[in-house]
Amino acid sequence: MKAITESFVVPTRGKGTYEITDEVSALLKRSGITTGLATVFLQHTSASLVIYENADPTARADLHRFFEDLVTEDNPGLIHTAEGPDDSTSHLRMALTRTSESIPIAEGRLQLGTWQGIYLFEHRSAPHRRTVVVSLIGN
Amino acid sequence: MKAITESFVVPTRGKGTYEITDEVSALLKRSGITTGLATVFLQHTSASLVIYENADPTARADLHRFFEDLVTEDNPGLIHTAEGPDDSTSHLRMALTRTSESIPIAEGRLQLGTWQGIYLFEHRSAPHRRTVVVSLIGN
Amino acid sequence: MKAITESFVVPTRGKGTYEITDEVSALLKRSGITTGLATVFLQHTSASLVIYENADPTARADLHRFFEDLVTEDNPGLIHTAEGPDDSTSHLRMALTRTSESIPIAEGRLQLGTWQGIYLFEHRSAPHRRTVVVSLIGN
Repeated sequence: MKAITESFVVPTRGKGTYEITDEVSALLKRSGITTGLATVFLQHTSASLVIYENADPTARADLHRFFEDLVTEDNPGLIHTAEGPDDSTSHLRMALTRTSESIPIAEGRLQLGTWQGIYLFEHRSAPHRRTVVVSLIGN
Repeated sequence: MKAITESFVVPTRGKGTYEITDEVSALLKRSGITTGLATVFLQHTSASLVIYENADPTARADLHRFFEDLVTEDNPGLIHTAEGPDDSTSHLRMALTRTSESIPIAEGRLQLGTWQGIYLFEHRSAPHRRTVVVSLIGN
Repeated sequence: MKAITESFVVPTRGKGTYEITDEVSALLKRSGITTGLATVFLQHTSASLVIYENADPTARADLHRFFEDLVTEDNPGLIHTAEGPDDSTSHLRMALTRTSESIPIAEGRLQLGTWQGIYLFEHRSAPHRRTVVVSLIGN
């Protein structure tokens, strides 16, 4: 039984989704674990994680637009806006999606479905460097 | 220490919530693990997981209705609709709920609260066969 | 390799967020685990978990307000209201945030980012006693 914790950095170019499936799979492969659990954790509160449809880019375009409409930046009720109109809204969009995601491992592979990709969901307009921590536990 | 990854299929009859607590508990019992972690993972992007109130069916009726209203199928802004009006909306409803859920194990049992049931939340109108993967780690 | 499952109770004083980072960190320290995974699980369906900005209280004030507006208590379409106007809405707000959250462990510490705190998000107006279960797995 092994327990490994590693991390990598994702440079973002502003709002949108950035696929990180390959980075997580590479860490799993290097670990040599064949059965167990991979947990992906994002160390930020103005970006989040989501497992989303990975085939047709229009699916993610709708995701981006939906969150712009659901958590609007022109909401006068928001007071946590010291860092700009994408300050509080970035935290709220994070709270509505995920900070951690756990994926079972079997036969040395992440047990993702055919159309599932792991994405970092950047909620800030400016580029950022985001740290993803991955825990791998298993045999 | 054991690490086991197994799966089962849930046939759905269209939109709604389908309880899978018994299926997960049965896998745990068979594993012989008494202390550790059970992770439930859904291999789809147009259905999701949610742990919800398991006593009064009106609670889940409100859940279904709320998501119909929050992520409406008649949103002209959505472009990922090749598979119908429940295409993009099913992914959005999934993103707002969960793909994985982890439940601690103690004394050989899932440590769910009294009123908690694990549900598969189907967002597609047509029947589907959904694969749930379960990771069990512990002693 | 160790697998430990423990719990603690959080008394709440009505709606709002209650930080539990220190309680989880204390359990980790006592476990002696240096590398692995900590999973926090809430045994309730009318309260939830969220990892949120822990520095400026206005961030959480916006979170509270946003959920009041997104899942309104004066929605005449909700039927699961036997326990009051905060009955169904508390479950819906829970479904939109999280029931479990998994945080990698390295060097004996939770790998939270600088601005991340783990919060219990109480959705009920009346005070409650909430049970948080923590699974710790690792070396």
